[in-house]
Amino acid sequence: MGSRRKMIESTLQLLRRQGLRATGISRIIKASGSPRGSIYFHFPGGKEQLTIEALRVAGETVAERIRSALDAQKSASGALKKLVAWYAAEMRRTGYQRGCPVANVASDAAADAPAIRAVCAEIFDRWLNLIALGLERDGFRRKDAVAMAEFILSSIEGALILCRTQRSVVPMQRVGQHLLTMLGRRSNAPGCDGRAPRPSQTPR
Amino acid sequence: MGSRRKMIESTLQLLRRQGLRATGISRIIKASGSPRGSIYFHFPGGKEQLTIEALRVAGETVAERIRSALDAQKSASGALKKLVAWYAAEMRRTGYQRGCPVANVASDAAADAPAIRAVCAEIFDRWLNLIALGLERDGFRRKDAVAMAEFILSSIEGALILCRTQRSVVPMQRVGQHLLTMLGRRSNAPGCDGRAPRPSQTPR
Repeated sequence: MGSRRKMIESTLQLLRRQGLRATGISRIIKASGSPRGSIYFHFPGGKEQLTIEALRVAGETVAERIRSALDAQKSASGALKKLVAWYAAEMRRTGYQRGCPVANVASDAAADAPAIRAVCAEIFDRWLNLIALGLERDGFRRKDAVAMAEFILSSIEGALILCRTQRSVVPMQRVGQHLLTMLGRRSNAPGCDGRAPRPSQTPR
Repeated sequence: MGSRRKMIESTLQLLRRQGLRATGISRIIKASGSPRGSIYFHFPGGKEQLTIEALRVAGETVAERIRSALDAQKSASGALKKLVAWYAAEMRRTGYQRGCPVANVASDAAADAPAIRAVCAEIFDRWLNLIALGLERDGFRRKDAVAMAEFILSSIEGALILCRTQRSVVPMQRVGQHLLTMLGRRSNAPGCDGRAPRPSQTPR
């Protein structure tokens, strides 16, 4: 791994674990094993720039995971099942130490780091848009797909917090089950929500 | 307000705004305007003790809000509508500066502050139990009520993060609408989830 990439990775690990405010530049220097001058050579914007680049890497990783789950599965439900299982396995593997870096940073940055908050909003929008496209492929109308994507992302982000707090994957699994039931009902039981499913569309 | 109470309130405001790790004892001393000795006189356990007491105050405030919403409304849906409207108004009023202090602290504490994490888990359990009781009153079976309570709390906690990030109450409103639709379907359309609603129970 190149030294620039290593600095970004170290920043990301710290953000996942402890959020934005507690992650000072000295801590990043220590964790990455890079000299201070080298950090400022690669990131003249210091901590803000490093944070933004680390968030973009994390945002892209999750976006890629959503995209590939949707590609590999015929339905949004199938993709959701895969993603929930992945999160549960990942939390177990890392001993519940890591949260969603974007949510962690967004909570910290919402009050007084507008540039960083804007990047978090942009990343959430990207994820929401991908989820909504998957739902549209299943027959959701655009407007419903956007609202449902927001509901899915909210409940998964909240479940991550409950899981880390309880040191258990059960909240994630049960939230996933509820979401699957909802999606199944939307696509299989038109009488229940008062509208017929739309014919399947070509994935975009 | 007594000086002890003022120290707790100052800690709570800081936790809401910036989470656990960034809230050092010096910051609390400054915000509360209390001398250092006085803080340690009232809270010999220092920051950990202050944090735990502040979380308990916040936990009790929310618990009371859930309880009174359930008392004032005939159904869990009515109570949920009230709570969602309250959160939206509160976020607007405070310029999206404040998140849920328990979720903020839980995210920070999950990795390496076990005593604080345990208190967060205890508070979430308290809220979950109150929500579940409200659902049982509407005819949910205990097991379903617990899982649905977890789903409601997860999606609201997640929606708070999206709202703060986007500086908009729309995600909270739309998530609330989805939850209301779900609850309405459970209680009014037994054919849709394959079971009949139970007769209304006496609130406990």
